[in-house]
Amino acid sequence: MISPHAVVKASDLPDGVVIHEFAVVSEGAKLGKGVVIHPHACIESGVTLGEGVEVFHGAIVGREPKGAGAVARPIEFERVVEIGAHTVIGPHAVIYYDVKIGSETLIGDGASIRDKCRIGDRCLISRGVTFNYNTVVGDRVRIMDLTHITGNCVIEDDVFISTLVATVNDNALGSHGYDEGRIVGPHVESGAMIGAGAILLPNVRVGAGSVVGSGAVVTKDVAPQSLMMGMPARLIRSLDQSQGFSS
Amino acid sequence: MISPHAVVKASDLPDGVVIHEFAVVSEGAKLGKGVVIHPHACIESGVTLGEGVEVFHGAIVGREPKGAGAVARPIEFERVVEIGAHTVIGPHAVIYYDVKIGSETLIGDGASIRDKCRIGDRCLISRGVTFNYNTVVGDRVRIMDLTHITGNCVIEDDVFISTLVATVNDNALGSHGYDEGRIVGPHVESGAMIGAGAILLPNVRVGAGSVVGSGAVVTKDVAPQSLMMGMPARLIRSLDQSQGFSS
Amino acid sequence: MISPHAVVKASDLPDGVVIHEFAVVSEGAKLGKGVVIHPHACIESGVTLGEGVEVFHGAIVGREPKGAGAVARPIEFERVVEIGAHTVIGPHAVIYYDVKIGSETLIGDGASIRDKCRIGDRCLISRGVTFNYNTVVGDRVRIMDLTHITGNCVIEDDVFISTLVATVNDNALGSHGYDEGRIVGPHVESGAMIGAGAILLPNVRVGAGSVVGSGAVVTKDVAPQSLMMGMPARLIRSLDQSQGFSS
Repeated sequence: MISPHAVVKASDLPDGVVIHEFAVVSEGAKLGKGVVIHPHACIESGVTLGEGVEVFHGAIVGREPKGAGAVARPIEFERVVEIGAHTVIGPHAVIYYDVKIGSETLIGDGASIRDKCRIGDRCLISRGVTFNYNTVVGDRVRIMDLTHITGNCVIEDDVFISTLVATVNDNALGSHGYDEGRIVGPHVESGAMIGAGAILLPNVRVGAGSVVGSGAVVTKDVAPQSLMMGMPARLIRSLDQSQGFSS
Repeated sequence: MISPHAVVKASDLPDGVVIHEFAVVSEGAKLGKGVVIHPHACIESGVTLGEGVEVFHGAIVGREPKGAGAVARPIEFERVVEIGAHTVIGPHAVIYYDVKIGSETLIGDGASIRDKCRIGDRCLISRGVTFNYNTVVGDRVRIMDLTHITGNCVIEDDVFISTLVATVNDNALGSHGYDEGRIVGPHVESGAMIGAGAILLPNVRVGAGSVVGSGAVVTKDVAPQSLMMGMPARLIRSLDQSQGFSS
Repeated sequence: MISPHAVVKASDLPDGVVIHEFAVVSEGAKLGKGVVIHPHACIESGVTLGEGVEVFHGAIVGREPKGAGAVARPIEFERVVEIGAHTVIGPHAVIYYDVKIGSETLIGDGASIRDKCRIGDRCLISRGVTFNYNTVVGDRVRIMDLTHITGNCVIEDDVFISTLVATVNDNALGSHGYDEGRIVGPHVESGAMIGAGAILLPNVRVGAGSVVGSGAVVTKDVAPQSLMMGMPARLIRSLDQSQGFSS
């Protein structure tokens, strides 16, 4: 069912595709079986949507990264987006070009995913979350509302990041211009949990299975299985006595 | 005045309704006298808008809660939204199904209100605020920009919650799956004030008239009329000497 | 190139203007040479876009400030917006009436700029940032994702404000109603840097070249060239030994 009010230039639409009012599907977009495009969503050229993907109202898949004079970083990207089967893109979410998202993942309302990001399967990226460029996220990762994930981050499988968590990648607070080698975001290892309102400073590594308490400010590396709290974050105790920290 | 570029399937539109370009008003939506629908807004079936309601550009009233594979919680909801007289819905705000909002309330730009929420009269829910499911808000409550209100919260009348406040409802950070009984958000009693960047942990009760300072992390119940500060939040003093805390 | 699906009522469009599908350009809007309006964007009457301005999908330029019953402040404004040459407005950004933005500035996805704000040249206002009314921002200012800038703020040239920073302008947390003289936001002097998740309380002045650490809560004035950390923020050291604080 294609609304007569939509603008659809893509060809070869498979069975069961639904495109609602005032949606725009550009030439060269590829839609899988059963894809649903809600009103006012835009699917740009070079985008591939897997089977059963649903794109909600006003979402944009395939946004060009476009700096104004103020943006130091030179932007190179490929005009490609791949979205895996049965993934849902919430209303007003923005997926830039050069992004790959796995299957059965949920991108929340108004979330924004910059170029060169890779997000795995069965993730939950909640409302208003913003990702900067070139961040890699594993499978089954959950990131709650209004959290900011900085550029050049690594987030491994099964990580949980709560609401309003800040991550940063530049100790000099941008005062030295852009230097790809110096700008490194946090690396959160598998199964770690980051509490609400926590802050992860540049280049820190949070070890596997660690828990960072709400409001904690992580200023240096955290060993695996550590419970960290405070500003700056301090070790409260190990979460696995049999393992210890020196092993 | 109905724009010839809008898609309007609702019938029995009363006097003074204005529907702008590229708006979508579905069959079965009920609009009160003098309702204004700005460009690109969508009013879905089952929605009732009271007299004088104004829905700004690109807002969505009646969004289906739709999990992808990643979302643990089973979702049941009624396909109904009720918005009281003279309430304003800001641009790109998203009101899910099974929500009731009172009269003369303002929902800010890009705010997102999940299913089963109830919000009272003369509230201000500011820009970018996200509500999770099943939260109840009284009258004259003000919640400032970019604050996250978690699921299963209670916020009583005349509460003020400042900007970038985090509330959470799951001490286990989601590691045990979803369990309706265990997941309880904060309860903020009438007239309490929560400062900017504060964090309220699961199941804490903030007593009537209490003040939580900016950046404080509330880890346990707060007696009425208390001034709390710090991480974790500690009692600084009572705000009402005549009342005391043991009474 | 004007899409046949757009609604364009402005006249005298200059060379090279591109208006995409389902955009709305109202009568009385003025577009410079080479302006690009992406799908679903709205340019209202009284808006002037300089040469080469690009307005992305679903952005709104010229939103009326509209309180519901809940909003105390009376709203007066001029129905004018001026956007300087080569500035970029991201998708779903909302620019209220009575706003001026300089040239080569970038307004991020979903950012919201209230009435009476003035923003200079070559600024970066990142995704999801919200500005309240009557705030003045200099040139080359960078404000990262999901930060809230309160009303009646002054932010001088070359300031850097990181992600999820809270600023407030009302010590009484709104309990006394609106009083223009009492409501004063922070003043951040030139070249100061504010770390992620920091909080600036009402009426504080952050001196030129100072650095506020991540998560710090600034409760009183900060001398120039100071490094401040903690909750409440304390002076860690001067950043310029030769200058000192009493000079």
